[in-house]
Amino acid sequence: MYRNKKINIAIVGLGNIGINLYSHLIKNKKNIIKKNNINFDIKYVSAKNKNKKRKIKIPKKKWLKNYLQAAKLKDIDIVIELMGGSQGPAKKLVFTAIKNGKHVVTANKALISKYGDILSLLAEKKKVNLEFEAAVAGGIPIIRTLKEGLIANKAQRIYGILNGTSNYILSNMDKLKIDFKSVLEKAKKLGYAESNPNSDLNGEDVKSKIQILSSLAFNCFINKSKINLEGINNIDDIDIINADNLGYKIKHIGLSEIENGKLIQRVHPCLIKKESQISNVNGVLNAVIIEGKPIGKFVLKGEGAGPGPTTSALVSDICSVLRGNLKFPFSVSHANRKKIAPLDISNKIFSSYLRLDVIDKKGVLSSITKVLSKNKISIKRLIQNPFKGKKSASIIIISHKAKNKNLVKCINQLNRNNFILKKAKFIRIEEI
Amino acid sequence: MYRNKKINIAIVGLGNIGINLYSHLIKNKKNIIKKNNINFDIKYVSAKNKNKKRKIKIPKKKWLKNYLQAAKLKDIDIVIELMGGSQGPAKKLVFTAIKNGKHVVTANKALISKYGDILSLLAEKKKVNLEFEAAVAGGIPIIRTLKEGLIANKAQRIYGILNGTSNYILSNMDKLKIDFKSVLEKAKKLGYAESNPNSDLNGEDVKSKIQILSSLAFNCFINKSKINLEGINNIDDIDIINADNLGYKIKHIGLSEIENGKLIQRVHPCLIKKESQISNVNGVLNAVIIEGKPIGKFVLKGEGAGPGPTTSALVSDICSVLRGNLKFPFSVSHANRKKIAPLDISNKIFSSYLRLDVIDKKGVLSSITKVLSKNKISIKRLIQNPFKGKKSASIIIISHKAKNKNLVKCINQLNRNNFILKKAKFIRIEEI
Repeated sequence: MYRNKKINIAIVGLGNIGINLYSHLIKNKKNIIKKNNINFDIKYVSAKNKNKKRKIKIPKKKWLKNYLQAAKLKDIDIVIELMGGSQGPAKKLVFTAIKNGKHVVTANKALISKYGDILSLLAEKKKVNLEFEAAVAGGIPIIRTLKEGLIANKAQRIYGILNGTSNYILSNMDKLKIDFKSVLEKAKKLGYAESNPNSDLNGEDVKSKIQILSSLAFNCFINKSKINLEGINNIDDIDIINADNLGYKIKHIGLSEIENGKLIQRVHPCLIKKESQISNVNGVLNAVIIEGKPIGKFVLKGEGAGPGPTTSALVSDICSVLRGNLKFPFSVSHANRKKIAPLDISNKIFSSYLRLDVIDKKGVLSSITKVLSKNKISIKRLIQNPFKGKKSASIIIISHKAKNKNLVKCINQLNRNNFILKKAKFIRIEEI
Repeated sequence: MYRNKKINIAIVGLGNIGINLYSHLIKNKKNIIKKNNINFDIKYVSAKNKNKKRKIKIPKKKWLKNYLQAAKLKDIDIVIELMGGSQGPAKKLVFTAIKNGKHVVTANKALISKYGDILSLLAEKKKVNLEFEAAVAGGIPIIRTLKEGLIANKAQRIYGILNGTSNYILSNMDKLKIDFKSVLEKAKKLGYAESNPNSDLNGEDVKSKIQILSSLAFNCFINKSKINLEGINNIDDIDIINADNLGYKIKHIGLSEIENGKLIQRVHPCLIKKESQISNVNGVLNAVIIEGKPIGKFVLKGEGAGPGPTTSALVSDICSVLRGNLKFPFSVSHANRKKIAPLDISNKIFSSYLRLDVIDKKGVLSSITKVLSKNKISIKRLIQNPFKGKKSASIIIISHKAKNKNLVKCINQLNRNNFILKKAKFIRIEEI
């Protein structure tokens, strides 16, 4: 504040997000200068394809010959990396820019979850900002909130609905009572799912996000091991209907928590009570919940993706740099970040939803209950529905709490039986 | 960051909040220094009653002889005002401290909503921070979020459940099916309502908060006129039951919006659909919703009051000062704050819930519908329930949208009839 310098920005990557950011900065320049009391300019841009048709005309003089110049030219203060990907040009650009003493703003969750620790140390040494608000939960300013608004708090748990595509699919399967495939097609048509939506559907995207959040919430290095990873590919519409009848919604979550001093990170679908604060987070919305002291339970909900919300996040990062609000990228200095040993979920206890499609013959239920009992799993609720006109039935079991490893073992044993028509379903029940 | 100076703090006011903050800062000193990379000390304290029994022993040397020394002594950098009240000592302390070039952190919504404009100008001139995160919505970092995380956004509307006491009462009337008085007594016993809860119940407290939020969201001066103000004193348990049967919850909200370039601020109870993002914000929880561009709809939920959440907010303010993150107290400079003309709600249209307890005799319904029709109010739904064993009935009407002034006129005209047993109820229906 109260400074006269002019800050020069370079935007590298001009897809939907890049172009939206570019035009937002041009359109709102006056306002941004007013709020941060410092002048700025988008001095340079770069993109893979210079001649692609874009909504906005960018003056010729702004184009860099080579993207890497953004990390090198003396008259650039902030580099905005919007290429994506954890390797190749994005990696090279961000490393070089920081090494050359430039502030970096990025939306690249893959890069940050992979190289965040070393990049953060570099930024600390070079006394520059490394900002990545747009990497997690789109328009929800969760990173800024963890680093500033909730700075006084000691987190016990952080979790949320972190993937708009997955959430759109699950909530539309529920709303429209149609199957996974049909909703996925609809989502692709509407632009809510990419043509290759694998990393959204298999949980990889959420994994990167929860790694970053976890590291910020617990002031630890980014943990990369023993993370339980499951996507939504396995959820049938009948599971969503069953859950609904039992008072639950099925949501895909990323969760990180400290238990007995160990870090447990997990990504998987789960049943949550309809009364939960996040059961009504539908469509492409995201939500993040922090449980900590002294704040208690704190919920943020908002649009998790798309050019608008992502621009909102990028601009908040840029303004933070403009204001000179220099911070450690992961809240505390490298020397003060902790190593927290990770723990897999095998001994963690869950109650669970099991669905077994079986041949309807004598002794089946008795065989099933025997397997459960052998694995120390007790039944809270059991419903058997016959399939109309077929000699088969669907058995839905809500189990009491049992160790994850026992639940998994039990499912594997059940699957080995001849009376099982389709691989048994197992979805954890989460009290959140 | 990366500075060697030591920052001295004075805390003035040592009630529940003050003591909680004091012990939090002592206990978490190391951690706070790590995160902000600057040393600090609680050098002085002051309180009305020095000899009151407190949970924590405060060294004698820390006590100021007179509270106003906090604003004057050279070895104080940050003054934390926790006395409360818009006049008297709190006012004197904050004005003097800023004039003397000290940063001020306060939880005082009455003071900020009344003198925020002039205090903010003073702070700007003196280049000091004036921080008041704790004045609105307790632990929810809404002010920081508006000023930083959502800095890119142009808000159209901001609203929320902003009073924990009111929300506790309404949601417990709903949950326990008991009346206002009984819940209020329970709330007092549990410490959720003060012995004199007037400003919580009549909406005054929410009014101050929405004035502050509104000013931040729209970058305008604090508006003090044409604010519609209604509390929850008037809500009967039967209204909550009726609402529930119709698919609604009754919530008390503060709302500020721009319509045709005018500012409409209002505080009142309303019916909101059960599917709404805030219908399940119960107990002492608060919620704030921002509708803006490009972010869309953004929701924050958390604990709105109490020593823990308030300390969370105060510490985030203190850390902001420690980091040297100097900002205009209301986002933009005094010269850039706008004057937005206020508009009362008389011409604003609402659909509404009306409840009329009437003598059950011929012609009553026809008289009622005539009054409605004369005031251009059309009926969407009407339910008449007889009172058991009495010659009277309760008529519940859900109206289509009509001008507020017509709704109010209609109610007044209805109340003049002999067949009305009790003042008619009128609660707006809000699509939020």
